[in-house]
Amino acid sequence: MAGWMEHEADSWREECGVVGIFGDDEASKLCYLALHALQHRGQEGAGIVTSDGGSMRAITGVGLVSEVFNQEKLGKLIGSSAIGHVRYATAGESALRNVQPFVAGYRFGSVAVAHNGNLVNYKELRARLEESGSIFNTSSDTEVVLHLIATSKARPFISRLVYACEQLEGAYSLVFLTEDKLVAVRDPYGFRPLVMGWRKNGALVFASETCALDLIEAEFEREVNPGEVVVMDKDGISSLCLMHRQERKACIFEHIYFALPNSVVFGRSVYESRYRIGQILAEESPVDCDVVIAVPDSGMVAALGYADKAGVPFQQGLIRSHYVGRTFIEPHQKIRDFGVKLKLAPVHNVLKGKRVVVVDDSIVRGTTSSKIVRLIKEAGAKEVHMRIASPPITGSCYYGVDTPCKEELISYRLSVEESRKFIGADSLAFLPLDSLRSMLGEEAPTFCDACFSGQYPILPRAGFYEQSKSTQAETFLPDNGSAIKYKPVGAV
Amino acid sequence: MAGWMEHEADSWREECGVVGIFGDDEASKLCYLALHALQHRGQEGAGIVTSDGGSMRAITGVGLVSEVFNQEKLGKLIGSSAIGHVRYATAGESALRNVQPFVAGYRFGSVAVAHNGNLVNYKELRARLEESGSIFNTSSDTEVVLHLIATSKARPFISRLVYACEQLEGAYSLVFLTEDKLVAVRDPYGFRPLVMGWRKNGALVFASETCALDLIEAEFEREVNPGEVVVMDKDGISSLCLMHRQERKACIFEHIYFALPNSVVFGRSVYESRYRIGQILAEESPVDCDVVIAVPDSGMVAALGYADKAGVPFQQGLIRSHYVGRTFIEPHQKIRDFGVKLKLAPVHNVLKGKRVVVVDDSIVRGTTSSKIVRLIKEAGAKEVHMRIASPPITGSCYYGVDTPCKEELISYRLSVEESRKFIGADSLAFLPLDSLRSMLGEEAPTFCDACFSGQYPILPRAGFYEQSKSTQAETFLPDNGSAIKYKPVGAV
Amino acid sequence: MAGWMEHEADSWREECGVVGIFGDDEASKLCYLALHALQHRGQEGAGIVTSDGGSMRAITGVGLVSEVFNQEKLGKLIGSSAIGHVRYATAGESALRNVQPFVAGYRFGSVAVAHNGNLVNYKELRARLEESGSIFNTSSDTEVVLHLIATSKARPFISRLVYACEQLEGAYSLVFLTEDKLVAVRDPYGFRPLVMGWRKNGALVFASETCALDLIEAEFEREVNPGEVVVMDKDGISSLCLMHRQERKACIFEHIYFALPNSVVFGRSVYESRYRIGQILAEESPVDCDVVIAVPDSGMVAALGYADKAGVPFQQGLIRSHYVGRTFIEPHQKIRDFGVKLKLAPVHNVLKGKRVVVVDDSIVRGTTSSKIVRLIKEAGAKEVHMRIASPPITGSCYYGVDTPCKEELISYRLSVEESRKFIGADSLAFLPLDSLRSMLGEEAPTFCDACFSGQYPILPRAGFYEQSKSTQAETFLPDNGSAIKYKPVGAV
Amino acid sequence: MAGWMEHEADSWREECGVVGIFGDDEASKLCYLALHALQHRGQEGAGIVTSDGGSMRAITGVGLVSEVFNQEKLGKLIGSSAIGHVRYATAGESALRNVQPFVAGYRFGSVAVAHNGNLVNYKELRARLEESGSIFNTSSDTEVVLHLIATSKARPFISRLVYACEQLEGAYSLVFLTEDKLVAVRDPYGFRPLVMGWRKNGALVFASETCALDLIEAEFEREVNPGEVVVMDKDGISSLCLMHRQERKACIFEHIYFALPNSVVFGRSVYESRYRIGQILAEESPVDCDVVIAVPDSGMVAALGYADKAGVPFQQGLIRSHYVGRTFIEPHQKIRDFGVKLKLAPVHNVLKGKRVVVVDDSIVRGTTSSKIVRLIKEAGAKEVHMRIASPPITGSCYYGVDTPCKEELISYRLSVEESRKFIGADSLAFLPLDSLRSMLGEEAPTFCDACFSGQYPILPRAGFYEQSKSTQAETFLPDNGSAIKYKPVGAV
Repeated sequence: MAGWMEHEADSWREECGVVGIFGDDEASKLCYLALHALQHRGQEGAGIVTSDGGSMRAITGVGLVSEVFNQEKLGKLIGSSAIGHVRYATAGESALRNVQPFVAGYRFGSVAVAHNGNLVNYKELRARLEESGSIFNTSSDTEVVLHLIATSKARPFISRLVYACEQLEGAYSLVFLTEDKLVAVRDPYGFRPLVMGWRKNGALVFASETCALDLIEAEFEREVNPGEVVVMDKDGISSLCLMHRQERKACIFEHIYFALPNSVVFGRSVYESRYRIGQILAEESPVDCDVVIAVPDSGMVAALGYADKAGVPFQQGLIRSHYVGRTFIEPHQKIRDFGVKLKLAPVHNVLKGKRVVVVDDSIVRGTTSSKIVRLIKEAGAKEVHMRIASPPITGSCYYGVDTPCKEELISYRLSVEESRKFIGADSLAFLPLDSLRSMLGEEAPTFCDACFSGQYPILPRAGFYEQSKSTQAETFLPDNGSAIKYKPVGAV
Repeated sequence: MAGWMEHEADSWREECGVVGIFGDDEASKLCYLALHALQHRGQEGAGIVTSDGGSMRAITGVGLVSEVFNQEKLGKLIGSSAIGHVRYATAGESALRNVQPFVAGYRFGSVAVAHNGNLVNYKELRARLEESGSIFNTSSDTEVVLHLIATSKARPFISRLVYACEQLEGAYSLVFLTEDKLVAVRDPYGFRPLVMGWRKNGALVFASETCALDLIEAEFEREVNPGEVVVMDKDGISSLCLMHRQERKACIFEHIYFALPNSVVFGRSVYESRYRIGQILAEESPVDCDVVIAVPDSGMVAALGYADKAGVPFQQGLIRSHYVGRTFIEPHQKIRDFGVKLKLAPVHNVLKGKRVVVVDDSIVRGTTSSKIVRLIKEAGAKEVHMRIASPPITGSCYYGVDTPCKEELISYRLSVEESRKFIGADSLAFLPLDSLRSMLGEEAPTFCDACFSGQYPILPRAGFYEQSKSTQAETFLPDNGSAIKYKPVGAV
Repeated sequence: MAGWMEHEADSWREECGVVGIFGDDEASKLCYLALHALQHRGQEGAGIVTSDGGSMRAITGVGLVSEVFNQEKLGKLIGSSAIGHVRYATAGESALRNVQPFVAGYRFGSVAVAHNGNLVNYKELRARLEESGSIFNTSSDTEVVLHLIATSKARPFISRLVYACEQLEGAYSLVFLTEDKLVAVRDPYGFRPLVMGWRKNGALVFASETCALDLIEAEFEREVNPGEVVVMDKDGISSLCLMHRQERKACIFEHIYFALPNSVVFGRSVYESRYRIGQILAEESPVDCDVVIAVPDSGMVAALGYADKAGVPFQQGLIRSHYVGRTFIEPHQKIRDFGVKLKLAPVHNVLKGKRVVVVDDSIVRGTTSSKIVRLIKEAGAKEVHMRIASPPITGSCYYGVDTPCKEELISYRLSVEESRKFIGADSLAFLPLDSLRSMLGEEAPTFCDACFSGQYPILPRAGFYEQSKSTQAETFLPDNGSAIKYKPVGAV
Repeated sequence: MAGWMEHEADSWREECGVVGIFGDDEASKLCYLALHALQHRGQEGAGIVTSDGGSMRAITGVGLVSEVFNQEKLGKLIGSSAIGHVRYATAGESALRNVQPFVAGYRFGSVAVAHNGNLVNYKELRARLEESGSIFNTSSDTEVVLHLIATSKARPFISRLVYACEQLEGAYSLVFLTEDKLVAVRDPYGFRPLVMGWRKNGALVFASETCALDLIEAEFEREVNPGEVVVMDKDGISSLCLMHRQERKACIFEHIYFALPNSVVFGRSVYESRYRIGQILAEESPVDCDVVIAVPDSGMVAALGYADKAGVPFQQGLIRSHYVGRTFIEPHQKIRDFGVKLKLAPVHNVLKGKRVVVVDDSIVRGTTSSKIVRLIKEAGAKEVHMRIASPPITGSCYYGVDTPCKEELISYRLSVEESRKFIGADSLAFLPLDSLRSMLGEEAPTFCDACFSGQYPILPRAGFYEQSKSTQAETFLPDNGSAIKYKPVGAV
C-alpha cells in the first residue's frame, strides 16, 4: 500500500521522472507542464534547464513543480530546448544541490543531465574518477555521468556520451542537453520507462510516461528502445545503439504501483494490467464477501477488476483526504492509527456488518496494512480480507526504486499466514508470481521481477548496498535549508 | 460538476465549516484536527480561538489549516475550550480580517463566533446597527451577531445571545466562545448541518460534519436541533429553544455535493444518498452503454450506484491529479481545455471505442461539463452520455452557498436539450426533482430544495441580492495580502 | 541612550508616524515614500489606505515599510488621496489587527484614521462606548475615535469628527480619510508634531516630520496648529478650531531623541537644538578630556556641539553596525555585554589611553549605559565621562511615548552620583532642566517637559496607568502571526 | 561615494570576508558572529562548514548572515572547527551554488574552502583542468583550488594543498577545512588581509579583519604572513612558507574604503589612516569654507581629519537612512536624484548659506557624486567643495575588488577639472598619490596602489578581463532563485 503515504517509511519511493523537449519556443513552459504530469514520480524537488542554442539556463528547487516555478522564473528560462526532472528523496537528501538536472561546464562547453534509475557500479566509477582527480559535489550517482563525459578523449560529443554510458551498469533513463543537442538514452535492460512523441509544430518530446505527452498534446510515437541513444539537433533526429542488444528487463513495479493508470508503459496499458491483476486475484483467491473496496488511489483499478470478476459490488469504503500536508501535530493523548486516519476515512455505511475485501497494490513493512485493517474493522466490518495486487516483495530493488533492506520487508521475514496475523486480516492473499508472469505472457521474460523472484538481471557490485545506504548518509552539500552530513569516502 | 475545480468560476462554493470543543486540555490541537477533517468545506482561511477560563487567544490566517497552524502556534493557544472555522471565499474576500472566528471585546468581556450560513436580513440589521452608531470592520454578515449581543440590554450572556439570534433571519449554524462558555446555535430551519458528540474524557465537541468527530475520536450523539441553543460551561450542558419550532429545511445540496461521503448529515448517510441517486438515474434515464465513469471525486458514489443498477461496469475513466495548485501557467500556444486537463486525465484504454456514461454531481454554468465531454470524446469514446446526480439548478441559494446569479445558470437559461447541445453530449439527463423528493420520502418537506424548485423557505429581503454581491465588492479591510475595495454603504 | 537599541527594553519607544496626501494620482506611492522617511518613528508595522473618491482600499502589515509594500500592492491602492501610518510596538502587540490606519464602515460610509499620540481618557471613553453597545476589535486607544464618530448624531462629517475629537483628552495628531476628504487634527496641547506642505502639482501633504515632505518634494508650509482641524476636499482647503486655544505643550523629547536631525519640529531645527544642548553640556559640565565621542546615532549631534564648545576633537569612537537584525544567537560561553557589542564596536586607536567624554541622548534604566562605559574602558580609555543631552528622566510619559513605569527609571531611583557609580563612569552629568528651558527661551512654556519636571499638562485619569499597561497585555486579536492574549474588560 | 550605496553600480564592491575557527565546541556560533562582524565585506550570501573530526556539515544561503542562519541551523552545524564566508556579488551571480564555502568530496575525503581575492590565471587553470577532464559547477575562480588539490598526486594533505596554491596567481586569502585540519593561506603578495588570534579557551581564529576577533573575544596575535600556510590540527599549530618571499603588496583600498575603522589592517589602524588622509587633504587642498561634512559612513573619518586640520567645524550635513532595503518604488513623476535621496538626507540648517567641504572616500563613475553635490546645493549651500580621500582611480583592480572596466572610471576619462564640472562642484581635489605614499612612509612599496598608479604587481593573463566579465555572464548554476546564464567556455 503506498503512494498516498509519501511521508511515512512504509512505502515504495520512485526516484524520478524526466522530460526532454526540442524545437519549441515555449520549451520551458511545456517542460514544466510535463513535469507536473509526472509529479507522482517525485515530489521532493524539480528542475529545468534550457538552451537557446548558445547558452544554457537552469532553475532547480526543493518542493513541487508548482512551488519551484512561477511565470517569472519560466520566463527567464529562454530557449527552444529543455530538459526537466522531478525527484523523490527523503528529507535528509533533499539538499538543493542534489536536485537535478545537473549542469557542468567542461572542456567543450556545457552539458546537463537528468536521470531516472540507479547505477549499480556507481561506487566503483566514483572511486576510479576520484583516483584520477575528480571532485564530487553531490552524493548522487548521476554525477559520475558528467565526469565520464568530461574525461572522455573522444569526439564528437555523441562519442563522448556513448563512451560514458558504456561505463554505466544498472538502470538509467537519461536525457541530456547541450547548447545544441537533446539526447535521450535508455540502458540496455530498459529497466525504467522512457517514451518519445511529437507535437504538431514538430517539437520532439521525451518523457518517463505517456501521461506527460498527453498533457502537452504531443503524439506518442514509440518507446526509446533499451540500449538506444536518440539524438536530436537542428539537423534532425538520429538514433544509435549503445551496445549489443540484451533482453529487456522492464520494471514490473511501474505497472503495479508507480505509473499513472492513464499511462501506457513498456507498450502496455497500466490500467489494463491492474484491472487484470484484480481479476486474477478474484479467480485465484476468492472469498465470500459483500463488498470490495480499495486502498486509494493505488489499489483502485485492481479493486475494480476484483469486484468485476467476483461479481460483488465495488464501493468507496475508504475516502482519501486531499489535504494531507507535510506534518500534522498529534495530541498528547494519542489518537490510535493517527497517521492513517488523517489520510483515510472509512465510510461506516459501506462497511458496517459487511464482509469486506480490501485491495492494495503491495505490502512493504506491513505496518500500514495493519492500521488499515483495524480502521475497517472499527468501522464495523464483520470480516476483512486483504488482497494484494502484487506478489510478496522479498528483495530490495537495485534499479532505481528506493526499497528498504530486505530484513525490513514483511514478506521476507514472515510467511503469508504470519503476515496475515500481523496485519490482523481474516484472510490475506497475494498475486502469485506465476500468475503475474502468465498475465505478461511471452513478454514475461522481458520484465524484471527481481523484488519478487530474486532473479536480478544484473548483480549489484560488492559494497553496493552499503553504498546506496551510506552514500545517502554521506550526502553532502551546502543547502539553504538543512545541514547535511558527509563522511570521508576515503582517508589520507 | 465541482469541488475539484476550486479555482474556476464554474462551481458551487460552500461557505464554511465550524468546530467547538469544551473540556479538553488539548482543545486547540483537537480543534485543528477537526478543522482538517472539514477542510473540504473551506480552503481559503482558517482560525482558532481558545479560552483558558479567564482570557482568550486567537490565531487566524489565510490558507489551508496545515498552512495557518504549526506546533508553535497551537502551543500558544492554551485553554481547554476552543472554537474554529474554515472559510471558503474568492480571492478578493480572503482578506485576513474576514477570516473567522471573529472576536470582540465589549461591556461584559470577550466573545468569539464562527458561522456557517448566510443571513438574509444582514443588510437591514447592519443598517439598523449603524443607525445607532455601530462601526463595521468586515463585510461579513457574521459581524452583526457580535454587535447584536453587545447592544443587548439583557443579562445574563445567554439572554443576550438569544436576543441576538432572534434578530437573525436566514441560515446559521453558529458556535460561540466566551471566557467560560461554549455555545452552539442552529437556525430554526436548520439549513446548515451541526452535530455534537463526546470524547471519552468527557469533552464536548460540535462540528459541521460527523467526519470531524470521527477523526478526533468523539462519539456522535445527535444533531444540534433546528432552533436549538446548546450551552456548555463548567456546570454542565443545557439546551434551550430559540423560538417556536418551524419545519426543518435542511440543505439537500449537502448530500449532493458538499459533505464528505463518510459523513452522516441531517441523520442520513451521504454515501447512501448519492449511491441511491445514481441508481435512480440509471432507472429513470437508462441508456445503452459499455462503461460508467465518474467525474472525480464528487460524482464517484453516484456513478457506482448508476453502474450497479445499470449492470454495466464502473471504470476509472478520468484520473484526478493530486497536485493541482493555485495557478498554472499556460503556453501561448493554447492547449485546448487546459484547465480541465491539468486536473483530469482520461484513460484511453477505458474510453476508446466505448459508449460512455459519465456521472457528475451537478451542472452550474455548463462550461466545465462541455470540456469534460470533449476530453472523453478525444480519448476515443464513441458516445458520451452525461448523467447529473441532481435536478437542474435554476435558482440561486440565499442560505450560505455561494451560487452565481440565476442568469448564469445553464439550467435557468436553457432547456435540457439545449443544455445537451451546449455541452456536446450524446444524451443528458438530470435527476428529476420528484425522484429526489421520493427518495427522501416523508422527510422530503424537511429539506430545502429551493435552488431546484424555487420554493424558498424564507425570502431574501429587498436588496439582498445586491447586498450579497455588492457587499463582496465592498469587502473591506486591512490585510497584509491584498488591497480590498469597499464602497460607502450610505453617504453623508 | 536609545534608538539603535530597538529590541532591548532600555529605550524610549515612539508610538507612530502619520502621513496624509490629497490630490495626487500617485498618492499611495508618495505615502509609501513618506512613511519610509518616517520609518525611525515606528518599525513594527505599516499601513496605507487610499480613496479614489468613491471607494477605499487598505493594506497593512507587520514589519518595515519596505517589507509590507511592493510594486504590486501599491498598484492596488488606487486613488488620489491616502493616509499612512508607521507603528512602534513590542512584539506581543504587533498583532496585525492593531496596525493602523484603522478603517470602519458606518452609517454614512467609510472612514479611516491614523494616530500618533495617546489618549489619557481612553479607558473611560471605551467603557462609555461599550456601555452603549460598541464592540472593540483592537486594544488600541485609536479605535474609540471611530466609534465616537459613528455614534455622533451630528452632520455633516466634519461636525461628527469635531464632536468626536472634543471627547478626546491627551495627545493626538490624527489624519482621517473618507471617500472624499482628507482631514488632519492636532490636539489643543499640540503634544505631537504634525506639519503640512504642498507638492508642485497642488497636492496637499501632511506628515509627522518635515523630513517626509523633503523626500517627496513637498514644500513645507506650516505646522498644523494645536487644536486645529484642517479639511481638504475637492472644494479646497479649510480650517477650523477644535476648541478655545490652550497653551501649546509640545513634546521636548522630539528634539532630544525622536525626530531626525534633518527635520524641523515645532518650528525649531532639531539639529540646532541638539548641537546647542551639546554646547551647554560642555559649558556647564566641563571636564579635562582628550576626545569627545558619541553614542551613535542619537548622541551624535550633541557630541559635535560638546566638542565644539570644549575645543576638544570629536572622534568616531564607537562604530554602529548596520546589520543588526531581530535576534542574535549568543554562545553558551557568554560574551560580556554581548547585545551592545553586536551593535557598537569601539575604535581602540581613538580610545586607548584617552580621557573620553561620551555623549548620549538620555538614560532610561541605565543598563545600556553601564555596558557602553565598560566597552569604552575595555578599549583602553583612561577615563570615561558620560554627558547626557537631556535632564534626568524621573517620570513616565502619558502622551504617546512608551516609557517604563517610573520605578524602573534610574533617575527616579538614584541620585546622579549613585547613577554614576551604577554605570561605572568617572563622571556623569545631565543637561540641567533650567538650561534646557533657558535654551528654549520664551518658548519654554510651550513645551512639555513632564518626564523631567513632573509638570504634567493634563493628568492621566484614574486607572490610566493600569490601562496603558494592562490594555496592552489584553491586546487582542486574530493575527496570522502570534497568539494574543486578551482578558475580559468587565464580566457578566 | 560608497558603501551605503550597495545596490547601485557606482561603487566598489569587495568580494568577501573569511573566517576559520579550530578547537571550540561552539565553532559554528562563533563563526556566525565573526561573519556578522565582517558583514560589511559581503551582503549577498553567507555560509558555514563545520567538522566534528569525522564528518563535515555545511549550510549556505543567499542574504545576510542573520537571514541565512538561525538557532536551529547553527545547532545542526556540530563540530569544534569551522570555516565561514560572506560574499558580495551582483544579483545575477548570487546563485546559491556560488555561495562559499565550497565543499568537495574526493579521493582522500572532503575538503572545504573559503576565498577572499581573485585569481588572475583562473581561466588558464580552468582550461588546463578541463583539458584533463574536470567539470565545473560554478563560475567562481575558487573552484579551481579544489580541483588542483584533488588532482595532486602528493601526500599528505598539506603537500597537495601547497601544490595547489603554487599554481595560483593573484590574490588569495584562503581558509580550508578538512575532517581534522584548519588551514589558512595568504598569497605571497598578501593582497588581501588575513589575521589570526586566540580565544582564552585556546581556540584558534582566523578572520579577514580584527573586528571579527574583537566581537568573539579572540586576542589578535598577528597577520598571516604573505606566502604563509598556517596549519592547525589536534597536534597543534605549524607554519610553512608557500614560496620564496616576495615584497608584500597589500591593498591600500582596504584602508581607504573596505575595512571598518575599528579594524587594524596590515598592521595599521584604519581609523588613523583615514584621519591622516583627511588632514593631508586639508593641507594640500585647502579652501575657504564654513563647514566640513562627510558622505556617510565611509567618508566620515577622513572628514573629521580634514575638519581638524582645517580648523573648521565638522557637522553632520548628510543623514544616512538605516532602512534602505533592496528596491524602492519610484513614482512615475520622477523625483530628482531619487536613489540618493532615499539614502541621504541633507540637513538644511547645517548647509544653508554655507561654503561646504564634503569629504567622500573615492569617486568611481562620478554619477553619485554629482547627485550628492546637487543635494547639498539644493539644501542651500553657497559653495560645495568636494574632497576625495583617495587618489583618482584610473585602472581596474585584478585582485579581488570588483571594479568597472577603466573606460567607465571618471578619472580615466576626465581630468580633475573636467570631473569637477561633471559633478558640479565648486572645487574638487583628490588625495595626491605621492601624499598617500608619503603617508605610508617606508611601507609604501609594500602596498598595492595599482588602481591609482597603474603599477600592477602581477599582470593579468591574456583574456583575464573577458574572463572576469564573461565568466560572470557565464555564471552558471541551478539555484532555487534565479535563472543563470552560462555560455560554453569552448566548443566541440
